[in-house]
Amino acid sequence: MAIKTRADYLASLKRLRPNVHKFGERIEDVTTHPATRRVVESHARAYDAANDPALSGLFTAKSALTGERIHRHNSLMQSAEEVICNSKFKREMFRLTGTCTGSLCAGWNAMNTMWAITHEVDVAQGTKYHERLQKWALRAEAGGWTVAGALTDAKGNRNLKASQQPDLDSNLRIAAVQENGIVLRGAKLMICGVAASNEIFLLPGTAYGETEKDFALACAVPRDVEGLTIVETRRPSDTREQEEGFDVPTETGITQAYLIFQDVFVPNERVFLCKEFAYSGKIIQYFTAIYRACIGACVAGQGDIMIGAGILMARANGLSARTFSSKFVEMAVNNETTFTMGIGSIALGSRHPAGIWIPDSLTAHANKVHVATLPYETKRLCQEVGGGIVETGCFPSYRDFVDPHYGKLVQKCIKAGACSPEARARAARLTEWLTLGAGVPGCMHGGGSPDGARVVVRSLTPMEKYAEMARKLAGITEQISEPGK
Amino acid sequence: MAIKTRADYLASLKRLRPNVHKFGERIEDVTTHPATRRVVESHARAYDAANDPALSGLFTAKSALTGERIHRHNSLMQSAEEVICNSKFKREMFRLTGTCTGSLCAGWNAMNTMWAITHEVDVAQGTKYHERLQKWALRAEAGGWTVAGALTDAKGNRNLKASQQPDLDSNLRIAAVQENGIVLRGAKLMICGVAASNEIFLLPGTAYGETEKDFALACAVPRDVEGLTIVETRRPSDTREQEEGFDVPTETGITQAYLIFQDVFVPNERVFLCKEFAYSGKIIQYFTAIYRACIGACVAGQGDIMIGAGILMARANGLSARTFSSKFVEMAVNNETTFTMGIGSIALGSRHPAGIWIPDSLTAHANKVHVATLPYETKRLCQEVGGGIVETGCFPSYRDFVDPHYGKLVQKCIKAGACSPEARARAARLTEWLTLGAGVPGCMHGGGSPDGARVVVRSLTPMEKYAEMARKLAGITEQISEPGK
Amino acid sequence: MAIKTRADYLASLKRLRPNVHKFGERIEDVTTHPATRRVVESHARAYDAANDPALSGLFTAKSALTGERIHRHNSLMQSAEEVICNSKFKREMFRLTGTCTGSLCAGWNAMNTMWAITHEVDVAQGTKYHERLQKWALRAEAGGWTVAGALTDAKGNRNLKASQQPDLDSNLRIAAVQENGIVLRGAKLMICGVAASNEIFLLPGTAYGETEKDFALACAVPRDVEGLTIVETRRPSDTREQEEGFDVPTETGITQAYLIFQDVFVPNERVFLCKEFAYSGKIIQYFTAIYRACIGACVAGQGDIMIGAGILMARANGLSARTFSSKFVEMAVNNETTFTMGIGSIALGSRHPAGIWIPDSLTAHANKVHVATLPYETKRLCQEVGGGIVETGCFPSYRDFVDPHYGKLVQKCIKAGACSPEARARAARLTEWLTLGAGVPGCMHGGGSPDGARVVVRSLTPMEKYAEMARKLAGITEQISEPGK
Amino acid sequence: MAIKTRADYLASLKRLRPNVHKFGERIEDVTTHPATRRVVESHARAYDAANDPALSGLFTAKSALTGERIHRHNSLMQSAEEVICNSKFKREMFRLTGTCTGSLCAGWNAMNTMWAITHEVDVAQGTKYHERLQKWALRAEAGGWTVAGALTDAKGNRNLKASQQPDLDSNLRIAAVQENGIVLRGAKLMICGVAASNEIFLLPGTAYGETEKDFALACAVPRDVEGLTIVETRRPSDTREQEEGFDVPTETGITQAYLIFQDVFVPNERVFLCKEFAYSGKIIQYFTAIYRACIGACVAGQGDIMIGAGILMARANGLSARTFSSKFVEMAVNNETTFTMGIGSIALGSRHPAGIWIPDSLTAHANKVHVATLPYETKRLCQEVGGGIVETGCFPSYRDFVDPHYGKLVQKCIKAGACSPEARARAARLTEWLTLGAGVPGCMHGGGSPDGARVVVRSLTPMEKYAEMARKLAGITEQISEPGK
Repeated sequence: MAIKTRADYLASLKRLRPNVHKFGERIEDVTTHPATRRVVESHARAYDAANDPALSGLFTAKSALTGERIHRHNSLMQSAEEVICNSKFKREMFRLTGTCTGSLCAGWNAMNTMWAITHEVDVAQGTKYHERLQKWALRAEAGGWTVAGALTDAKGNRNLKASQQPDLDSNLRIAAVQENGIVLRGAKLMICGVAASNEIFLLPGTAYGETEKDFALACAVPRDVEGLTIVETRRPSDTREQEEGFDVPTETGITQAYLIFQDVFVPNERVFLCKEFAYSGKIIQYFTAIYRACIGACVAGQGDIMIGAGILMARANGLSARTFSSKFVEMAVNNETTFTMGIGSIALGSRHPAGIWIPDSLTAHANKVHVATLPYETKRLCQEVGGGIVETGCFPSYRDFVDPHYGKLVQKCIKAGACSPEARARAARLTEWLTLGAGVPGCMHGGGSPDGARVVVRSLTPMEKYAEMARKLAGITEQISEPGK
Repeated sequence: MAIKTRADYLASLKRLRPNVHKFGERIEDVTTHPATRRVVESHARAYDAANDPALSGLFTAKSALTGERIHRHNSLMQSAEEVICNSKFKREMFRLTGTCTGSLCAGWNAMNTMWAITHEVDVAQGTKYHERLQKWALRAEAGGWTVAGALTDAKGNRNLKASQQPDLDSNLRIAAVQENGIVLRGAKLMICGVAASNEIFLLPGTAYGETEKDFALACAVPRDVEGLTIVETRRPSDTREQEEGFDVPTETGITQAYLIFQDVFVPNERVFLCKEFAYSGKIIQYFTAIYRACIGACVAGQGDIMIGAGILMARANGLSARTFSSKFVEMAVNNETTFTMGIGSIALGSRHPAGIWIPDSLTAHANKVHVATLPYETKRLCQEVGGGIVETGCFPSYRDFVDPHYGKLVQKCIKAGACSPEARARAARLTEWLTLGAGVPGCMHGGGSPDGARVVVRSLTPMEKYAEMARKLAGITEQISEPGK
Repeated sequence: MAIKTRADYLASLKRLRPNVHKFGERIEDVTTHPATRRVVESHARAYDAANDPALSGLFTAKSALTGERIHRHNSLMQSAEEVICNSKFKREMFRLTGTCTGSLCAGWNAMNTMWAITHEVDVAQGTKYHERLQKWALRAEAGGWTVAGALTDAKGNRNLKASQQPDLDSNLRIAAVQENGIVLRGAKLMICGVAASNEIFLLPGTAYGETEKDFALACAVPRDVEGLTIVETRRPSDTREQEEGFDVPTETGITQAYLIFQDVFVPNERVFLCKEFAYSGKIIQYFTAIYRACIGACVAGQGDIMIGAGILMARANGLSARTFSSKFVEMAVNNETTFTMGIGSIALGSRHPAGIWIPDSLTAHANKVHVATLPYETKRLCQEVGGGIVETGCFPSYRDFVDPHYGKLVQKCIKAGACSPEARARAARLTEWLTLGAGVPGCMHGGGSPDGARVVVRSLTPMEKYAEMARKLAGITEQISEPGK
Repeated sequence: MAIKTRADYLASLKRLRPNVHKFGERIEDVTTHPATRRVVESHARAYDAANDPALSGLFTAKSALTGERIHRHNSLMQSAEEVICNSKFKREMFRLTGTCTGSLCAGWNAMNTMWAITHEVDVAQGTKYHERLQKWALRAEAGGWTVAGALTDAKGNRNLKASQQPDLDSNLRIAAVQENGIVLRGAKLMICGVAASNEIFLLPGTAYGETEKDFALACAVPRDVEGLTIVETRRPSDTREQEEGFDVPTETGITQAYLIFQDVFVPNERVFLCKEFAYSGKIIQYFTAIYRACIGACVAGQGDIMIGAGILMARANGLSARTFSSKFVEMAVNNETTFTMGIGSIALGSRHPAGIWIPDSLTAHANKVHVATLPYETKRLCQEVGGGIVETGCFPSYRDFVDPHYGKLVQKCIKAGACSPEARARAARLTEWLTLGAGVPGCMHGGGSPDGARVVVRSLTPMEKYAEMARKLAGITEQISEPGK
């Protein structure tokens, strides 16, 4: 049975070799260590949801490969409806955890992207990648795996190509091709939720030409594969996770890791692209079309929680939530904009010959521009509603709250509306966490920068066609050309 | 054969009784009179498109009633895909005409709305409205009719209900019920494209309670029905339409009319709701869900033309269009936002038991907020690109352009880039027309105000559910209630 | 006595040779012709104000030359307070007329700019320009002249320098230098309020180098100088000015003209710069510093009227103005922003050795960015408050309003709140006029484009200094340089 | 000599009784403790600046009381120029420290506010407050004191008045009046920079009526006064301040404290208002006029640093800063807007009979709306420029950076442009600190909420006058009144 429980999931993580580090320490058990237990809890809630009758319709799906019920996040998305479920899944996950979906996102997309790409490569070049991927997908389904997806390389100097970098390891590369597999060197950075994953799906970080063919690779590796060192990055206020009390008010969280590959061997059955550089651009194209169509759902889900946090704060301050009605409407419009525009991109998409559904690129990238701006407004509004106490989390720490000498005095100061000082403090810390703390997801650059998206919008908008329409409409009979042409 | 030609369409208009007025004059032939020929031309282009192989896939559809090929604008929309075609149809019409789709919009929506409503009324009350509407729809299909839709009443004092108005005719009402039909009095205002229509579909302007039941009516009347006086409203720079030259640079246009009903008799076979007030709210709900999901396509289509106009102006000024690349991208993002968010609303909709597809209300109304703001930004950007000559249309009139004494001097002044003075002048007038002139569509209040949409967003956003999610996430175990509860 | 009355002013205009044209017609009397009488009325109100005890403090000033009371718009501005009075004068004028101040603006600035420049040239080159200007200024003061200011040239191809244009007349130039004066050829375009002016002050339209020295000129000419042909441009809905009734609801207005110079002789005493190209850049610098510091007051003043129009419309619709309170506050913030930021630019300015006050350039240009955007938002809000009737001026013409057959029916439709149909119609036409009609001032490109302002902001912002501050603050001990340096 | 050195200042702090707490600990020496040493360093830089010839013109002033040279932050501001210096002082301090000016801001304003108020009370009621304040001011000047200002009370339930709170100590109050002084109870919250102050100036947090007269008080107390317990609040990522390395990249910082008064005795010579409730509203009015006119300078100064940080990041990433030119211009416009609009408010102000200058309220409050929004945009742009590494500070900690096992690998990943990994890391941490970390100042609610400012804008905008102007302009001869009037 492919539907796993929270217990199954936690056990699967405990079985992995410890190769995750933070603050100079190797983490022996990611499910209990303060630096990683919250991100594991976030992911565990997806397993809870899959077993919860109220949510299992969204969190599970029928396998296109076996017809069995599987975790939604292991599924191939073969229709607009199924990609829309990806969006809804993410929005719901953000509502359940308050933050980024981590390893239930990019790995899923990577598998779907490669489903199409391996089909194309095999048809064109007679390779057998698609069959390999299918076998891996069956194992992922059966195991109910959580799969991180890794694209972003260390990059090095942004002005130089991968092959020109002083340090070739600035981008993940095939250091050697051996009979039974390939050897990887290099680094993938800022990879979400790795500590909570079973596997990592690796894709190229950009479109490569022939001189960069060593960087054109796609494969999946176990999270604890030999030669892989994982170093977790900091997040705002992350040391609070090690403190007692409620200064991190949630049990959930997200992490982003540096993955450093030092001669990591990947056997052939896990390799889905090996130097076929001409497909790297398409990988980016398909991946971002899916990713950016759905990412609006993430920030919408967090925005939903921000509306909720705003309502709690208003009341905890002694005010009616109705006082801020117009701000909540503005927040809701922001949330529905990124979510619904993404849904529209999906509906405007088309089915790839390999059977998966690919959203419309132009509109998916246009949505990314909003994803990189509207959540900032939503956060500002959430801070505006909550008052000074939430703006910079400006009130004493938990330790001061319970201090034997002056803790009672602090609590007197925090008491405002009808709820307890602790309830107000927790609601305030929630807003801080969502808007200035460890819960802030990387909506600006996550999945690529808004300027990158603008470039795609420019290239896909038929500017000359519009000029021609305008010319005819205005009754202009001559051509009006670019100067110098 | 249900697909009509431009000639068929023009002939159908010429057959109507002249009851359209402007500037104190009764217009004898709307197809040739300067005040109305441009709006007729706009609509005629839909008939051209239906007969153009490149566009007929969008401008025609398969009838759900007969299986025959019909004009898209006469069709029942039974799936998300078909409502998406409504959006695409509107965007394309705006590209073809530069302005509002007029009578190819609201009447179509009205028929679809009433398709659902008549089904509901009949099921609940044993009436036969649905059958009547089906007969009318078959006639509309067969005739390839252009059907205006009229909802907005004169209203009178906004603080009073319809039945409390000093002048009962401020809202269209059933003045009498006779054995074979009803008698209407009152006024519908600001109705688009009536001069180009064959028929007018009348719906209530708001949700009515029992005391307002005389205002709860739905029916269709010929545009030239006895007792109906039509007075066209002004538009910015509308008298230019009577001038020679290119100060209105297009052959197309839009009109909005006052419809004054003085004891207009409507036979029963054309009556689809008669005092069943309880359904008036649902009419508004269904109509606006369709309307506001699709209206984003209208402003997107005009925005496409504004990008084109901007490109023409840049070049006419002697500059490369690339100079303004970031502004065109901003305009494109605006266009795709209102369009795609509407598509998303449609995809999130559901099928009504009567068989038509109804978009999601929350997100359709959220989109209206953008429809009421983003086009203003797009216009500003178009003016910014075009330069001072387009900002207020600040250059001499056509008459001065061709003046025998100083016309040549004026033309010398207007000459800039590689094109002729006339081409630059036409491009500049196009921008003026789109942003400050008769081509500006009523995107702010058309189909209801953004504040009305915000009220819907507020009521459909599950605020309390979000508060509850936030409460749980923050680990708050007590309830936090509204003050005074 | 230098303070003139409305009658004096009108008489002075009547004395001028008729050289203003529109619609192929030469206007014999600008004070009564429908195309120009409104702009004359606008200017006349400044003369009324100068004689009105409540306003004379603002509309008159003490001459720095004679100590006498003169019209404010003829004064040298020698302190921050006096430039602030320029701002306040403009805001008040917009309140009195609803639109652009025309010839009470740029000519005044031009004289002040040249006060500084002639001083500099004389000091450096031993010329006698300053003395000439002083004499002219004394005559302007004594006559209470209205002086248009003209900078913008026809320009021709924006990609070519003035000397490279196929048509040298694309930019105003010194065609010949004679013993007693200079001869001008070329064209100045989009010059505000010329029809209401006594004189025109001519300045270069851009900074010129040595090859363009023939274009480096400054002088003042009578509006009716021989060889000058003036052609008025169109404005939105300008033909309504020729109609009876209230479709233009105001008695005021603005015009913008094409000035075509065909061998216009300017005697030496009126010439203030003649080929000293090196000073043309400074002319632009000083002029725009004053102009852009004060232009925010113009759009603020019109915004004040838009708040008023919104209040009238709300009430005319039967609603309390309080309903729209938050929108009025947003409009007020927009108004005060452009006004107050301009005041700040003035306060941050400095006194030129010649005695006049020059505002701070960086902040004056930053303000221009707001002047080119915020009024668009204010207009949108004004339309949002007013309802569909104001959005595109969507109601019947005055002729239909008073039509003997159906005029009463139209009036019934327009009746809403407690006021008469005519009052509601006038309020609606006022909003249309302010937001889409002939009252719209050219705030985007008037006085230069926002992109031009952004270039100035970029060049005056000490970016490297900020980088250095950040470097030190972050404790970075090494330099971080531009790539390739 | 009134100009103190850094050493003088630090010594003065060391002399104070330890009554500041954080994390359950009493801080024995605020100048060295990790939780407070950065805020002390921030303030110390003002003393350095006062002794730096390049900055002493701004950081010192001539005493209006003695004519001696004193610290600017101890001065009475008697002219627009001197209040403008307050703005410039703050902008420069933000540039020097990257964050809030703390105790060099509100205490200074409080003294100036009370200079006017005590004058008014004395004139009206024959009290001697002004003389007391003058004596205190002389001591402050002579000592070169740093004076915190405290207005915000704990407030309790926002729906209840101070006298109705279940806990009367929710607002600071006069618990007893004794012959030689008053006794205070209650709490002031979120008070900036207290740990770095010598004295605290206490003002009412709102306007009080007669029933709240016990809360109408103004006085100054030494920071270490008996009965005062100070608890520092948390800030984002504040525990990093206790870590080794550069994860807080600056030596500067800000703090905000809870001040808990338990029967604090204040002798009469330090009491400047005692129950004269009628003046509490004016205190708020004068204080906020000064405060909100100048607060735009603070966020401008931080924005300057953000431009610098963006430039550093671009280059550290290997890109030219010119790539992001348009974003830097947008940031600069934001900075100059809040700064210059504040300068305008000051220039539009007026002199109080007591001799101090009070900025214009309407425009100062309008500026607050921008102060609460534009910095959020500037931060977003700074994150957009810097890339994913800065968005959530997403890279390993200093401890991982120097880890003996994998630190070198981490550094390889961080190496990008021409600078060292540490330089790039420091620049990235600076951006994080400015936009998501402990350097974020409370620009939204600091000095009052933007909604409070909007209320003031509404009340000070002459809406009815604008309606009247619009009415006359539109030629409307009848009155148009509010419904129901």
